[in-house]
Amino acid sequence: MKNISILGSTGSVGKQTLDVVREHRDEFKIIAISANSNINLLLDQIKEFRPKYVAVFDKNSANKLKGMIPSDINIEVLAGMEGLEIISSLDEVDILLTAVVGMIGLIPTLAAIRKGKTIALANKETLVTAGKLVMKEAKIYGSKIIPVDSEHSAIFQCLNGENNRKLEKLILTASGGPFRGKKKEELLNMTQREALKHPNWSMGKKISIDSSTLMNKGLEVIEAKWLFDVDYKDIDVVIHPQSIVHSMVQFIDSSIIAQMGCPDMRLPIQYALSFPNRIDSSFERLDFSKFSTLTFEKPDLETFPCLKLAYECLKMGGTYSAALNSANEVLVNEFLNDTIKFYDIPYYIEKTLEAHNSIDNPTLEEILDIDRWAREFIKKSI
Amino acid sequence: MKNISILGSTGSVGKQTLDVVREHRDEFKIIAISANSNINLLLDQIKEFRPKYVAVFDKNSANKLKGMIPSDINIEVLAGMEGLEIISSLDEVDILLTAVVGMIGLIPTLAAIRKGKTIALANKETLVTAGKLVMKEAKIYGSKIIPVDSEHSAIFQCLNGENNRKLEKLILTASGGPFRGKKKEELLNMTQREALKHPNWSMGKKISIDSSTLMNKGLEVIEAKWLFDVDYKDIDVVIHPQSIVHSMVQFIDSSIIAQMGCPDMRLPIQYALSFPNRIDSSFERLDFSKFSTLTFEKPDLETFPCLKLAYECLKMGGTYSAALNSANEVLVNEFLNDTIKFYDIPYYIEKTLEAHNSIDNPTLEEILDIDRWAREFIKKSI
Repeated sequence: MKNISILGSTGSVGKQTLDVVREHRDEFKIIAISANSNINLLLDQIKEFRPKYVAVFDKNSANKLKGMIPSDINIEVLAGMEGLEIISSLDEVDILLTAVVGMIGLIPTLAAIRKGKTIALANKETLVTAGKLVMKEAKIYGSKIIPVDSEHSAIFQCLNGENNRKLEKLILTASGGPFRGKKKEELLNMTQREALKHPNWSMGKKISIDSSTLMNKGLEVIEAKWLFDVDYKDIDVVIHPQSIVHSMVQFIDSSIIAQMGCPDMRLPIQYALSFPNRIDSSFERLDFSKFSTLTFEKPDLETFPCLKLAYECLKMGGTYSAALNSANEVLVNEFLNDTIKFYDIPYYIEKTLEAHNSIDNPTLEEILDIDRWAREFIKKSI
Repeated sequence: MKNISILGSTGSVGKQTLDVVREHRDEFKIIAISANSNINLLLDQIKEFRPKYVAVFDKNSANKLKGMIPSDINIEVLAGMEGLEIISSLDEVDILLTAVVGMIGLIPTLAAIRKGKTIALANKETLVTAGKLVMKEAKIYGSKIIPVDSEHSAIFQCLNGENNRKLEKLILTASGGPFRGKKKEELLNMTQREALKHPNWSMGKKISIDSSTLMNKGLEVIEAKWLFDVDYKDIDVVIHPQSIVHSMVQFIDSSIIAQMGCPDMRLPIQYALSFPNRIDSSFERLDFSKFSTLTFEKPDLETFPCLKLAYECLKMGGTYSAALNSANEVLVNEFLNDTIKFYDIPYYIEKTLEAHNSIDNPTLEEILDIDRWAREFIKKSI
């Protein structure tokens, strides 16, 4: 039985994690859940999974939730960043599944790492902003980091039993998002409504926009660099619209190992929780008479400059990736509010990178400072 | 440094094995080579690789070869089945690569297994005719059997680091051969010339004909059953004309791991020799802008009944697979001599299976008897 704490149980990945746990009550036990402010859903989850702890980031919502919990349920309600930190590092927790979106996951994830917890990592920003620091601490404290992103889970599965040093390159697949095949001129006036229509995956809003700009893939390239300790030159991105091949690894003998399946986030979530074991699932099986054609093409970096910017950040090193990520977070939010246009996202990211003073071996505090700086810089600029 | 003995160094796989060794002189040393009767090529190979032993199955050819070897080369020339057995079980040999075609590989391979050698197995018939016996002996003597067939090598690579019991099914890919998409009426009068034109792989004649009838895939299904200890119901065949995905494994959580690459037999050969390590290669790398479309379809069992017959043999168990294999060997030879037609191959195999008295736990002697019986049965029938 593995004891699990979830950062962000009311979001897309959080809910799917609970789906997996629901099917495997004999394998997994929910110790703690958390959310920003969606206390109605949290209450439902508390009633169903009976965790010992719940943390609500928004302190007012935490107070409200306290009053809503039935008297026969014994649960500790925590609040704020402290609450998230506490539920991430509880002695009885084996795995922290970190599914919050954005920089907010960094501090509690580091807290869990310092307690040697296994991290099931669905929060991209942790490694994008603080990859060097996080991987260093994970090594020091013996914390295993298991990716939940379908692409990184694929690579993680492909590397099973293989010698990492024999790796030639990683090949990350990308669906291409809702605007694949379009040219820049056609995208100038795209709205968030169109950008949110992802063809294959059911995902949250932030990731859906990132998928439409290919920034999602850019962040994944950065994440892959840290997770698998490879040079950015050895990470390829290939557009694969069917999202059946979730990613691949090429070895020095030319052999490629790929992980495939129907697009269903519950598979990588379950694998991260069950690793190194595999457990059964009722997920749809891939039917080759249904998915009879798989195609691959090169990404169009002219139309989707965000992917290029992510590679450039890796090339420049230091804290450029952190600045890119924070700028992107604010800009996606602005785009979702219809206050900026589609190409304003890469435009202002580039401005941010130009203005950024990079630090080579940043501390957590410096990374958080860069986040604040980038957010202010964007707000002033637009 | 691994010491290698090759059964069948002058055939297609044998020559490609020497290509691999040529590129990795620091990793592999050729101790012994062998052939049926191609002494001219054997002589060239002796001059280049300087093995300590050479075995020639045909005794007259062995005598001729003795007279051809330059006096400055110190080598022992062996002959007949005894010669093959000797070079397979030499103390100094680490790996026996068995690349002979047909039943002839069985006896020397069993000799090597009984000495605990690692077997790099490119001879399908060994497991098709004597799978139960061979796998049992391999277990007793601690002999590792590493597949060289591209499909089985793919599965072997996909199972790396995985727990075999978590396997849901094997998915063997098949190019479909030169007659893919054709209907029975169109194939009635096909000649060996057309059947020999394999679209993707450079192979020997016997395997090329087997590929045109899909018997090759049938033999591979049988081989896979023994190699990976799975039920025949858990082995699927999917037609994949591009031969890029070399085969796949599906696990109980729905995840599929696939091995991919350009079609080049040297990769699975090298992997079998280097396992559990991977070593570098100059083999062509898969370029997804070149192989931009991968397709999959169901095999047409009406047009290609040989595949169905192989499944039926597995279902019936006993020595049916051995009878099928021997009948097929004779029939392919007759087809190559233009003495029978394309559909006479499955027709006479079916007759053989109908007449066969199966044995549940056959000894080597009984398997060899079945081989003789099936050959005579076919010769009398046609």
